[in-house]
Amino acid sequence: MDKPDKKGRIDILQVHVRKVSLDPQLSLPDVAAITPGFSGADLANLVNEAAIVATRRKADSVTLADFTAAVERIVAGLEKRNRVLNPQERQAVAHHEMGHVLVALALPDGDTVHKVSIVARGIGALGYTIQRPTEDRYLMTKAELERKICVLLGGRAAEKLMLGHLSTGAADDLAKATQIAREMVMRYGMDEALGCVSHDSQRSPLLGTADAVYAPPPEPVSEATQQQLDAAVAALLDHNLQRASRILHTNRAVLERCSKELLKLETLDTQALKQLTGDLVREPDMG
Amino acid sequence: MDKPDKKGRIDILQVHVRKVSLDPQLSLPDVAAITPGFSGADLANLVNEAAIVATRRKADSVTLADFTAAVERIVAGLEKRNRVLNPQERQAVAHHEMGHVLVALALPDGDTVHKVSIVARGIGALGYTIQRPTEDRYLMTKAELERKICVLLGGRAAEKLMLGHLSTGAADDLAKATQIAREMVMRYGMDEALGCVSHDSQRSPLLGTADAVYAPPPEPVSEATQQQLDAAVAALLDHNLQRASRILHTNRAVLERCSKELLKLETLDTQALKQLTGDLVREPDMG
Amino acid sequence: MDKPDKKGRIDILQVHVRKVSLDPQLSLPDVAAITPGFSGADLANLVNEAAIVATRRKADSVTLADFTAAVERIVAGLEKRNRVLNPQERQAVAHHEMGHVLVALALPDGDTVHKVSIVARGIGALGYTIQRPTEDRYLMTKAELERKICVLLGGRAAEKLMLGHLSTGAADDLAKATQIAREMVMRYGMDEALGCVSHDSQRSPLLGTADAVYAPPPEPVSEATQQQLDAAVAALLDHNLQRASRILHTNRAVLERCSKELLKLETLDTQALKQLTGDLVREPDMG
Amino acid sequence: MDKPDKKGRIDILQVHVRKVSLDPQLSLPDVAAITPGFSGADLANLVNEAAIVATRRKADSVTLADFTAAVERIVAGLEKRNRVLNPQERQAVAHHEMGHVLVALALPDGDTVHKVSIVARGIGALGYTIQRPTEDRYLMTKAELERKICVLLGGRAAEKLMLGHLSTGAADDLAKATQIAREMVMRYGMDEALGCVSHDSQRSPLLGTADAVYAPPPEPVSEATQQQLDAAVAALLDHNLQRASRILHTNRAVLERCSKELLKLETLDTQALKQLTGDLVREPDMG
Amino acid sequence: MDKPDKKGRIDILQVHVRKVSLDPQLSLPDVAAITPGFSGADLANLVNEAAIVATRRKADSVTLADFTAAVERIVAGLEKRNRVLNPQERQAVAHHEMGHVLVALALPDGDTVHKVSIVARGIGALGYTIQRPTEDRYLMTKAELERKICVLLGGRAAEKLMLGHLSTGAADDLAKATQIAREMVMRYGMDEALGCVSHDSQRSPLLGTADAVYAPPPEPVSEATQQQLDAAVAALLDHNLQRASRILHTNRAVLERCSKELLKLETLDTQALKQLTGDLVREPDMG
Amino acid sequence: MDKPDKKGRIDILQVHVRKVSLDPQLSLPDVAAITPGFSGADLANLVNEAAIVATRRKADSVTLADFTAAVERIVAGLEKRNRVLNPQERQAVAHHEMGHVLVALALPDGDTVHKVSIVARGIGALGYTIQRPTEDRYLMTKAELERKICVLLGGRAAEKLMLGHLSTGAADDLAKATQIAREMVMRYGMDEALGCVSHDSQRSPLLGTADAVYAPPPEPVSEATQQQLDAAVAALLDHNLQRASRILHTNRAVLERCSKELLKLETLDTQALKQLTGDLVREPDMG
Repeated sequence: MDKPDKKGRIDILQVHVRKVSLDPQLSLPDVAAITPGFSGADLANLVNEAAIVATRRKADSVTLADFTAAVERIVAGLEKRNRVLNPQERQAVAHHEMGHVLVALALPDGDTVHKVSIVARGIGALGYTIQRPTEDRYLMTKAELERKICVLLGGRAAEKLMLGHLSTGAADDLAKATQIAREMVMRYGMDEALGCVSHDSQRSPLLGTADAVYAPPPEPVSEATQQQLDAAVAALLDHNLQRASRILHTNRAVLERCSKELLKLETLDTQALKQLTGDLVREPDMG
Repeated sequence: MDKPDKKGRIDILQVHVRKVSLDPQLSLPDVAAITPGFSGADLANLVNEAAIVATRRKADSVTLADFTAAVERIVAGLEKRNRVLNPQERQAVAHHEMGHVLVALALPDGDTVHKVSIVARGIGALGYTIQRPTEDRYLMTKAELERKICVLLGGRAAEKLMLGHLSTGAADDLAKATQIAREMVMRYGMDEALGCVSHDSQRSPLLGTADAVYAPPPEPVSEATQQQLDAAVAALLDHNLQRASRILHTNRAVLERCSKELLKLETLDTQALKQLTGDLVREPDMG
Repeated sequence: MDKPDKKGRIDILQVHVRKVSLDPQLSLPDVAAITPGFSGADLANLVNEAAIVATRRKADSVTLADFTAAVERIVAGLEKRNRVLNPQERQAVAHHEMGHVLVALALPDGDTVHKVSIVARGIGALGYTIQRPTEDRYLMTKAELERKICVLLGGRAAEKLMLGHLSTGAADDLAKATQIAREMVMRYGMDEALGCVSHDSQRSPLLGTADAVYAPPPEPVSEATQQQLDAAVAALLDHNLQRASRILHTNRAVLERCSKELLKLETLDTQALKQLTGDLVREPDMG
Repeated sequence: MDKPDKKGRIDILQVHVRKVSLDPQLSLPDVAAITPGFSGADLANLVNEAAIVATRRKADSVTLADFTAAVERIVAGLEKRNRVLNPQERQAVAHHEMGHVLVALALPDGDTVHKVSIVARGIGALGYTIQRPTEDRYLMTKAELERKICVLLGGRAAEKLMLGHLSTGAADDLAKATQIAREMVMRYGMDEALGCVSHDSQRSPLLGTADAVYAPPPEPVSEATQQQLDAAVAALLDHNLQRASRILHTNRAVLERCSKELLKLETLDTQALKQLTGDLVREPDMG
Repeated sequence: MDKPDKKGRIDILQVHVRKVSLDPQLSLPDVAAITPGFSGADLANLVNEAAIVATRRKADSVTLADFTAAVERIVAGLEKRNRVLNPQERQAVAHHEMGHVLVALALPDGDTVHKVSIVARGIGALGYTIQRPTEDRYLMTKAELERKICVLLGGRAAEKLMLGHLSTGAADDLAKATQIAREMVMRYGMDEALGCVSHDSQRSPLLGTADAVYAPPPEPVSEATQQQLDAAVAALLDHNLQRASRILHTNRAVLERCSKELLKLETLDTQALKQLTGDLVREPDMG
Repeated sequence: MDKPDKKGRIDILQVHVRKVSLDPQLSLPDVAAITPGFSGADLANLVNEAAIVATRRKADSVTLADFTAAVERIVAGLEKRNRVLNPQERQAVAHHEMGHVLVALALPDGDTVHKVSIVARGIGALGYTIQRPTEDRYLMTKAELERKICVLLGGRAAEKLMLGHLSTGAADDLAKATQIAREMVMRYGMDEALGCVSHDSQRSPLLGTADAVYAPPPEPVSEATQQQLDAAVAALLDHNLQRASRILHTNRAVLERCSKELLKLETLDTQALKQLTGDLVREPDMG
């Protein structure tokens, strides 16, 4: 559960790369920089995958490009270019993914978007957007969590705006956004009305500092409290869906242009996105 | 869970057909075209069944007709012509199945109806209607899911319209339609009032992209929220039952004519249906 | 779960009768005709029981009478003539069983009543009425299910009418009638107000035709919905109890006469019932 | 669960008495007459106990008196004369037991009271009243079940009337009376307002007569229905507590006289009770 | 569960004392008199403990004093003089324990208080008060149970009165008092409004006297009934907390004096308490 | 569960230190003084850890400093200086920890703060504050428990005050504070409105003093009662969050100064805190 930080990842990588021949140019800190959130096991797997990638291209040593390809495989599943979407589906996926991207770019202090693609990957995924935070994070603020929700709902907002209807493609986004909203309300006490009551019973040393940790069963709550919890979660989601919709409405032309390009090229990286979104109207930073 | 697409099915079929003698005319893409939704195991089974069909008719090689017959067996169970319905039951089944068919044909963008039959098949089924989408689908829109519900409820609407009463024959249709409506509301966020709260707790990676997937127990909801969920599901079903009833009411003469023909011939294919429904009044396309 | 039909039963019987010596007069279709609803195991058991009955009467071969006796044993338990009811109990049982019978005979399209008896049989049963449908049934209409409820409640209605009080003897009837009413409301969508929402979660293939069947846990419903379900079930039972009471009130003299005869003879068959109920006033057929 | 009737008990007793020497005067039907409700195991135990009783009094053979003593042991536990109650407790117990007795005698068609005692017996029991129905019963009417409740609540009514307070001694009576009231409402449909809905899900063969018996989990009910169930149970208990109180209030002098005699003699039999209650005012028979 | 009475305890003690050398002055009835509520196992343990006490003081035989010391150990745990409370805690404990004592002495018909101590004993206990009823009890009245609650809440009332605040020290008292109040309401039917409905499902022989005992799962109750149960329990506790507070308020000077003496001597016996509470104002006996 | 007191800890330490070489200056009572709340196992572990610390610094014997270092490790996990927070996170952690510290110092009768640090330790912890009570405690008053809640919520109050937003860092504090508030309400009867009803079912000896302890399942409560419980818990948390906010608002300059120093030095001890908080405005003592 306690993922290694960048320094920890470098240490772990050093252990695993002993058995492979590395390109002399390769800097392990660069590899660590593109693997935030990776566990020790993920890093071990990564080194193997990178070595396989290098072998496939019949190279003598593993380069950063090999690691980058391996990261992509692990993050979003193995490439599977042979899955063919019909034109309507491809367009919906393109709008959906660009919705995530433009909301992420328009929000203040957003994470960088590294890549967006409509090439199907892995089980269930029809497209994907890779956002990498520029550094490891230990704390998140209420504003940051709301931005995460807003980006997740950007896909649905884009489909609605551009196609006028909803599809089944947002199910995963809704589940993730709901989960974040629930933790904000129930674990982090971020709803003003509900105050700082924790509904996340995990440890409770009452008297003294060295008491044993125990996990009691979830505490019952009244219907009245449950209604407040439900309303608070719904309000967080509604608010950020409105927000994502507003951003995309303002930037409709950009969205249209980007989706078109994405449909053509299938994949866009940071560089391409920067060129396509030069006139993006950003949300004013209230923070 | 991840069914192969057409290309995938062709690959899988190529593996399994090695052990059987194929008709030189047979094109595997044609077989793949009639097997959307088939798993790898289904395809392996299909090849065996097709070979058995060919053997029974003492043929040297397996043709597309053999595969078609095998598909039918697998889709709806083995034929069981010896199950005898009484005349009232046969009539109810005929109206019921034609209800599905006519609603499917009258809706905009509906799937093609390949066959309708009142020959009893498999466990529990008294009749069946085979709709095959013209291509593999990865995404479905709200409108498409509602059309699925509408077609499912067409059987009940036809019984009610023509016989003036309800029977036990619609139980499976109601269960399927209810399930689709529930997923629309709880998983795909397709009810406007309920917004984009997901009530489908399955995975929830909060921080980072490579978090492990875990399945927490279902989250409790308040009575107020549960009432909204119940009402939204009921509204989707009611709306589409009205819609199916309206279509059949408008096309009562067609329904009467088709049911009569179905009672006579027991089975109707796309061709026969086209001839019988030339004057079908279709629902105007709002999309 | 899928009981064989008459043709199926003949086939199954042919397998099992090989090991017994049959009376040349015996026609297996006749045996199949008196065993609707029997499973394969029930039929195997039946052949054994019939052979035992024949052996007891020191016969060389098994006759239809032996099969009939065996059917009775299997249907309602072994005879147990030594259980002695007191006079009040016998009278209550006689009225109760005749209540079932007269309601069954007075309803339109009712099943035939083959036998009614106040000879105690099996565990818990104090009397019994055997109704055999004249043919195998695959579909039942709302009206037919209501008639089943009405017949079940006829026993209680007769006790109330003739003795002016209720007894514990109706517990099984109430449980069965409630179960039918519940399935009408929750599984067959037969309550107008509740519409066609299924509360019977069993299978739910959403996309495609060959999806695996799975059984999710029962879905939660709101208190508001549960109240509707409770009210709908209660209304079906109340309506049909009134209906049974009305029939018996109209035919009070017939009931009195029949119960008296049943108390005297202990058992009445179709023939005897026909002679006793010549002046029975039937419910007008609304269908 | 299916207790033998008198005839059955005679048969069972004949098996078990083979190993003991019976008094030639002893009639097994007499033993069967005092053992209604005994199971086969109880009867086997009874024969052993009766033999032990006979051995203790150094008799050669077992008499009816030995069986009677053995019945008492088994019914209410072994005698334990050394348990000493204080005077207040003895008085409370005497009033309590006489409350049961007088209510039983004052009700129409009540069971005979064979014995009442304040000699402590068995675990938890401080006194006891033995009522034996004069014959085996298979059916009970609503009126009979209400009388059972009324007799059970007679103990509490007597304590309240004579001592002006309640004690812990009525706990078992309340549990039994509540259970009877619950079954009347939930299983036997004896509450007019709730009608004939069964809340006792045990078996539910829907189609056909030979379906397998299955026990589904208890069905959920709405809060509204649960309130009706609670109210119906409470009303039955309240009504019969009032009734018992009214009987005892009318017969206060008899109660006082009988309790005094019971305190003096510790045990009263049918004969003694008849002499003491000659002026008992009975409840008029409404039946 | 069925504890021996005094006579039973004498018998049991006679068995166990065979193996120890008793002081000739020792009377077993005296030992039985100080051990109400002891089980057979407790008595066996007591004899062992008393022998150990005697051995420690290097005595040849076991005296009543040895038994008394052993009783104290078993009743409240082994002495543990080394647990040191701070002055505030000692004062709170003294007031708390004297609260129990004075309420017990001021109530009519209260049990005798044998000893009160602020010497910490056993796990969790910071002080203790030993009340021994003067005789074994089989029945308790509503008034007696309320007095038990009142004495239990006397500790909390005293802390509140003398220190003006509440502490964690009353947790056990509250749990016990709540449990008594719950059983009064749910098991003994002692709440007028709730009547004699038992919510304590334990045994329910419906028909006949020798039915097997079975323990069904707790019956569901409606929210309305649950509110009544909650209110009845809360009212019993509130009423008796007020009552204890009133007694202590009236006797504030006595409480102050006694607590001071208890702080000085750490332990007070019946004799010392009698001298200190000569001017105690008792609650008038309403009974 | 029953932690040793100071005297008990000295005894336990004496056992474990036999195997290590102690500095002659070391006084075990001093070690006992810094280990309140330690179990026997914790103390055994402590001696081992202290010995390891001494070995690392290549010392011949274990000093108090070694024990102090070992206590820190055990209390808050092993030091992990290599976890690097970003500047915003470090500032949030500094404010958060100083919030705990200043609230603790400003409250009347607060525990001493021994150390505050923003050096990451253990799993999940980003900073820590060590408060050691000056003596072992057996009883806690309502006021003390509220102060504990207030100190726990001080971290969140400081983040809000200084940064204007909430972060995920308070989750553990909220869980602990909620748990204390729940026990105050449900176990210690400290909410006036709810009175002294215990909702903490653990033991319930009803009659007599030596009854066996048993743990029944939690008792159901009505929605009305659950609402009261929820409201009481929320009110305790709200009240003390306001209180902590008020204290920090009053001492904003001190908080700013201390956080700055903590960011610079990473760790502050009692001495350093005393110098930095000379002008701290304390909450007036209402007690």
